[in-house]
Amino acid sequence: MVDIATRVHNHKWKIDPIVRSLIDTDFYKLLMCQSVFRNRPETQVTFSLINRATHIPLADLVDEGELREQLDHIRSLSLSRGESTWMRGNMFYGKRQMFTPEFMDWFEKLRLPPYHLERVGDQYELTFEGSWPEVMLWEIPALAVLMELRSRTVLHGMEKFELQVLYARAMTKLWEKVETLREIDGLRLADFGTRRRHSFLWQDWCVRAMHEGLGDKFVGTSNCLIAKNRDLEAIGTNAHELPMVYAALAQSDEELARAPYDVLSDWHEEHEGNLRIILPDTYGTKGFLENAPDWLAGWTGIRVDSGDPAKGAEMAIDWWKARGEDPSNKLVIFSDGLDEAKIAALHAQFSGRVRVSFGWGTYLTNDFRGLVPGDALAPFSMVCKAVAADGRPTVKLSDNPNKAMGPVEEVARYKRVFGVETQAAQPVEV
Amino acid sequence: MVDIATRVHNHKWKIDPIVRSLIDTDFYKLLMCQSVFRNRPETQVTFSLINRATHIPLADLVDEGELREQLDHIRSLSLSRGESTWMRGNMFYGKRQMFTPEFMDWFEKLRLPPYHLERVGDQYELTFEGSWPEVMLWEIPALAVLMELRSRTVLHGMEKFELQVLYARAMTKLWEKVETLREIDGLRLADFGTRRRHSFLWQDWCVRAMHEGLGDKFVGTSNCLIAKNRDLEAIGTNAHELPMVYAALAQSDEELARAPYDVLSDWHEEHEGNLRIILPDTYGTKGFLENAPDWLAGWTGIRVDSGDPAKGAEMAIDWWKARGEDPSNKLVIFSDGLDEAKIAALHAQFSGRVRVSFGWGTYLTNDFRGLVPGDALAPFSMVCKAVAADGRPTVKLSDNPNKAMGPVEEVARYKRVFGVETQAAQPVEV
Repeated sequence: MVDIATRVHNHKWKIDPIVRSLIDTDFYKLLMCQSVFRNRPETQVTFSLINRATHIPLADLVDEGELREQLDHIRSLSLSRGESTWMRGNMFYGKRQMFTPEFMDWFEKLRLPPYHLERVGDQYELTFEGSWPEVMLWEIPALAVLMELRSRTVLHGMEKFELQVLYARAMTKLWEKVETLREIDGLRLADFGTRRRHSFLWQDWCVRAMHEGLGDKFVGTSNCLIAKNRDLEAIGTNAHELPMVYAALAQSDEELARAPYDVLSDWHEEHEGNLRIILPDTYGTKGFLENAPDWLAGWTGIRVDSGDPAKGAEMAIDWWKARGEDPSNKLVIFSDGLDEAKIAALHAQFSGRVRVSFGWGTYLTNDFRGLVPGDALAPFSMVCKAVAADGRPTVKLSDNPNKAMGPVEEVARYKRVFGVETQAAQPVEV
Repeated sequence: MVDIATRVHNHKWKIDPIVRSLIDTDFYKLLMCQSVFRNRPETQVTFSLINRATHIPLADLVDEGELREQLDHIRSLSLSRGESTWMRGNMFYGKRQMFTPEFMDWFEKLRLPPYHLERVGDQYELTFEGSWPEVMLWEIPALAVLMELRSRTVLHGMEKFELQVLYARAMTKLWEKVETLREIDGLRLADFGTRRRHSFLWQDWCVRAMHEGLGDKFVGTSNCLIAKNRDLEAIGTNAHELPMVYAALAQSDEELARAPYDVLSDWHEEHEGNLRIILPDTYGTKGFLENAPDWLAGWTGIRVDSGDPAKGAEMAIDWWKARGEDPSNKLVIFSDGLDEAKIAALHAQFSGRVRVSFGWGTYLTNDFRGLVPGDALAPFSMVCKAVAADGRPTVKLSDNPNKAMGPVEEVARYKRVFGVETQAAQPVEV
């Protein structure tokens, strides 16, 4: 029987909002936001959308009016009481009151700041300017909105059963991955797929399917709203944004060289245990580890997010050994361009030697490759990054030159300061 | 939002009924029923379930209590006003009032007669006795109930997302067939899959998917309830049951030899056009055609339901030519054990030479092969047949000795009377 009231109510929506909650975002954004709120609240930053897949004409695929409506809707959101209660009272990484009362008071009053949107050729220029803790929260919803609007455009032309079969195929595809992954003894895997998801409902489905299909091997999701709704662990630590902005703010080459460690020094004061995860690749993993202070070797683990992942992990293992640490107690989290085969291979290579974990993103929540003509639903590489801080450009090098960003002369300076030599280029798929 | 009333109402169901309507049956059963009601209303018949797949331990897979509940529920059904209006007023095969007021008056009052159910080893003995027009209507619901109860047993042990992926895979499988079939120019195909369907909801899904995916190439469904609900053509003509019972009633070999033609003579009076379809294989296609009266060659077409289908069609083409008919005006309906590859091959071989059409059954509505461990949802060959009429056993020979049925000495007599020589055996999958 149709619930008439629901149907009539649904007719009243002007749009079908993609992002309906401020916590429909990655857990690490909230952790970082609190850290920034505490340590660098006055910093002015600019975040900008960067579509690395320039062959995808985003501005042709996504209607500007619809995009504005979705972004405006996000600006209307504020933290609900239930969301606030969850953040204040839930245990994250074994700790209660992960978020301080001061931060929560601020977050409860937050509305996201204005955006700047302009069509340039077949792409959008989408930027956000303002204070760092506010602007940084645009990253994930902005990406999720663009990805899902692009999905909607493609789906719009499809008929009812065609759509049902499309999702049937996507479900089958994901389940085959589950069937492969659940054979791996000792696997630990989390969903990191919010930003590039096909859609919110699809991410929610994927997370629930993984939960049923993998049982304890599925350790949680980076998406706070889904973690809350489905009673799962919220997963995540920190990202390149912190060292990038800290580095941009450095007044000298000396300060610049120290910036990535200053970030982790602040983090060290705030977090312990499984939240003490080094993300070493912002300006090259090799140099970062060589020059790292000894206290960093005492941290719980490392996240490998660019370059050859096996090489990155071996480098960390050697580094721990050199610093007198036992790698078998250490955690290595792989999170770059994973799929089930890569997960299986990396697990086979490193399990036993270190504790291995996986943050699985795009090919978990958006593997629609090969499902529609012209592969029009295939995911693509789009990011939303801090490009400036207090008027100075940011730079990212990473362990893959194809992921580098920043003005040419600044990139050169950073390479010199951080002693980055020639790097092996890897294709950036997602 | 949950419709509370619906949910509470659903709690009140004692069972989840599989067959919920007397017209959840094949259209040809209703056509034949009317013919029997007119020509042989007093004949007493026995119908019996025959599980040809003796390796499937039906009585272990299907709980006797649940089976009784489902059969009892079917006995509680009567024609609804809307169903009666549809049968009385709808146009079938281009004709209004296909069903006479006399027949409808009778049908509106009908409740299905008692059943006899007994467990014998790991199988059920399920029989129905009484007047022919009443008992014959048990065939399809009895089969559908057994198939779906067996499905439910297997599905009972599966979890939520596992179930969703099961149906996702089944949908994908069907849609791949649709994608193959829609490339065939001039294809005409109907659903004949009621009796062996995985479940009612699944048949309904399959029919709607075919309707969307194949467009005009999908000409309708044999299931009257689905045809009515989905505004599709109800499809079907007649079956072996008619010549089998007419033959059993014959008092001499001479009468026996004439019986298959007597059936069609009665049918000739009642129907025209696309309903004048010969089903020639009950006692061997070859002999049937050789001895057929000339007026039969004037009929619209033939249905090929056993033996090598290409051979059967060639035989019909030769026969039409020999009787001075132009085969290119004739309709050949293939309906035995079809799948998309066989459909494509037969279409390629005969389209242009005759008008070709397909009645697609089991592998349309129950292709769950390979989808669960142990292939526990694979369809199997189960029928429900008239085994006696007025105390005399029935016999079926067909063009495949593996489909033959009846007492040995009677089979021998029929072979003699109908001049059936050695036949090539074909495996009976479904």
